[in-house]
Amino acid sequence: MAPTEAAAEKQRQQQPRKAVGLAARDASGHLSPLTIACRSTGDDDVAIKILYCGICHSDLHSIKNDWKNTIYPIVPGHEIAGVVTEVGKNVTKFKAGDKVGVGCMVNSCQSCESCNQGFENHCPGIILTYNSVDRDGTVTYGGYSSMVVVHERFVVRFPESMPLDKGAPLLCAGITVYSPMKYHGLNVPGKHVGVLGLGGLGHAAVKFAKAFGMKVTVISSSPCKKQEALERLGADAFVVSKNADEMQAVMSTMDGIINTVSANIPIAPLLGLLKPNGKMIPLGLPEKPMEIPPFSLVATNKTLAGSCIGGMADTQEMMDMAAKHGVTADIEVIGADYVNTAMERLAKADVRYRFVIDIGNTLDDSAATE
Amino acid sequence: MAPTEAAAEKQRQQQPRKAVGLAARDASGHLSPLTIACRSTGDDDVAIKILYCGICHSDLHSIKNDWKNTIYPIVPGHEIAGVVTEVGKNVTKFKAGDKVGVGCMVNSCQSCESCNQGFENHCPGIILTYNSVDRDGTVTYGGYSSMVVVHERFVVRFPESMPLDKGAPLLCAGITVYSPMKYHGLNVPGKHVGVLGLGGLGHAAVKFAKAFGMKVTVISSSPCKKQEALERLGADAFVVSKNADEMQAVMSTMDGIINTVSANIPIAPLLGLLKPNGKMIPLGLPEKPMEIPPFSLVATNKTLAGSCIGGMADTQEMMDMAAKHGVTADIEVIGADYVNTAMERLAKADVRYRFVIDIGNTLDDSAATE
Repeated sequence: MAPTEAAAEKQRQQQPRKAVGLAARDASGHLSPLTIACRSTGDDDVAIKILYCGICHSDLHSIKNDWKNTIYPIVPGHEIAGVVTEVGKNVTKFKAGDKVGVGCMVNSCQSCESCNQGFENHCPGIILTYNSVDRDGTVTYGGYSSMVVVHERFVVRFPESMPLDKGAPLLCAGITVYSPMKYHGLNVPGKHVGVLGLGGLGHAAVKFAKAFGMKVTVISSSPCKKQEALERLGADAFVVSKNADEMQAVMSTMDGIINTVSANIPIAPLLGLLKPNGKMIPLGLPEKPMEIPPFSLVATNKTLAGSCIGGMADTQEMMDMAAKHGVTADIEVIGADYVNTAMERLAKADVRYRFVIDIGNTLDDSAATE
Repeated sequence: MAPTEAAAEKQRQQQPRKAVGLAARDASGHLSPLTIACRSTGDDDVAIKILYCGICHSDLHSIKNDWKNTIYPIVPGHEIAGVVTEVGKNVTKFKAGDKVGVGCMVNSCQSCESCNQGFENHCPGIILTYNSVDRDGTVTYGGYSSMVVVHERFVVRFPESMPLDKGAPLLCAGITVYSPMKYHGLNVPGKHVGVLGLGGLGHAAVKFAKAFGMKVTVISSSPCKKQEALERLGADAFVVSKNADEMQAVMSTMDGIINTVSANIPIAPLLGLLKPNGKMIPLGLPEKPMEIPPFSLVATNKTLAGSCIGGMADTQEMMDMAAKHGVTADIEVIGADYVNTAMERLAKADVRYRFVIDIGNTLDDSAATE
């Protein structure tokens, strides 16, 4: 038994409540059922029966140990939607039967400057939803599993009109685009925002920007996405980033650009699309440094502002706004037994725009292996 | 006669009003007196007898044609202080005898979105104070000269208590640091700002930050500037950027960093000094691109926001605030005949912190050569 398998076994012994998760045991990333431990419901905790979980590109990086920090076995998933089964005695916001979600984090110190300002996502003591060492020394398991127990501060209420399957991806992809739009003033009717890249994040950015009443231009290297962007997602314009004439035509016209691209691409030409005081928000993590000619930022006060998910109050606000405006993710619902195929397709960007695992109907509790 | 000399001669014929300027004729950058033309006072114009002009590092770059855009003969200078001698019939804000200044620009379109928002500095039709082709086709001459005629929108009132000599550099160095501090919330009492580099811009940044009631840490590669920073300029702390222990001690403590360094330095370690949501404001124009590891911006929402001088309303606001709080530049006043030596010393950063030419007392009108 490998050391990490032994740690998982110890965890199962410490936490007698059992669940089943789809786990990768090594960097092959192959996912298969595993019996996992789940803590008892603490005083501030909400126990959730998971019904759906979105597949984020981070999950793929994590199961393959691309970031060299994976603790195997790993159960990924941080776009979790389900139903409350039990709450601790201090819990006031939720009760059994409530439709809820959990995003990228399940705890933080709850007392630092970042936590007090509503940016739990910046807390040095953040506990991520999976692959993170929790307060009790156990490793967190994500939403590709039958249940999860989470401090109530990190549980999001699903408004009545928000479907669990199409809403699940908003807990990562949604808040990741919503938060910077809110904090950088890219939520103002009539302003012009560019959305660079049309994947899981990009399609959510288009929908939120339209819900905010903005003019939206999708910038993509794939001309084939034009019809999709304009007709299905409701973008106002589409620019092919490799077409110099099309790029020239939108120079200095954008108040902001939500950059969802994770590849190393030249940033300077894109900064040229911004008006003076315009803001580019990089959300991806390309391998190499971005090269920024100083003049392209300094000459007319342009801003490059990174952003990573969002705080819990903002996540609830995002979910409420999405419900109000009918913003949901475009998804392809899959069964648990399709997850490895889905990962292969995700690696090729062959999904519009998010896979969501139907955990409730297809993850067989009895299929778990020790 | 070289073509540009011919153009200057044509300009002198078109504009019969004569002044004397310190001009460079070629990329040697050597400055010597030249008779220059000055337009008649238009309806919206303010004619100014120049008494002092600060020497900005841009002047040095310009006279040596470092940016490959110099039009010779060039009369530099955009930190101009003097007295109004005449105003046009539409001018309401100024009258003869007023103490005034002129900064980096002398006109703009006055009708675009940037101009309407008070960012004349971002107007595509901006006319810079020197080395810029004006509306009438003439080339603008800067403040190393006996007089200048400027549209009233681009003239700044010197408050009664603001000395002309020590106030002149605020028109470039002052507004350059004041504007981003205002727009990026680095003007809030108790917040912590780092000032990177202690030259003309840096020393002004320390003074304004203290006037705003902020905690100020100077970050410098020169340990020898410590006493100066703490005792003379009133900074709260001093960190030697090459000292790993000192840098480590201030990790994640700063709300913002005003980066006044024009050399290519590694940016990522400096971003580490910022708190989550912290902002670095690069003001300089290093030759090579900045290399920004995406993670250093994205993980905790850090911002890199370029900034270039400021709008006219902000410049007046800056000057009024400076007068109220006793903020002035630390200067070394020189005579016109010392200007070439001053340039040599400036190239070696041998000045604390700005040279200011005493134009009124030392620029001999009769010394001009055709």
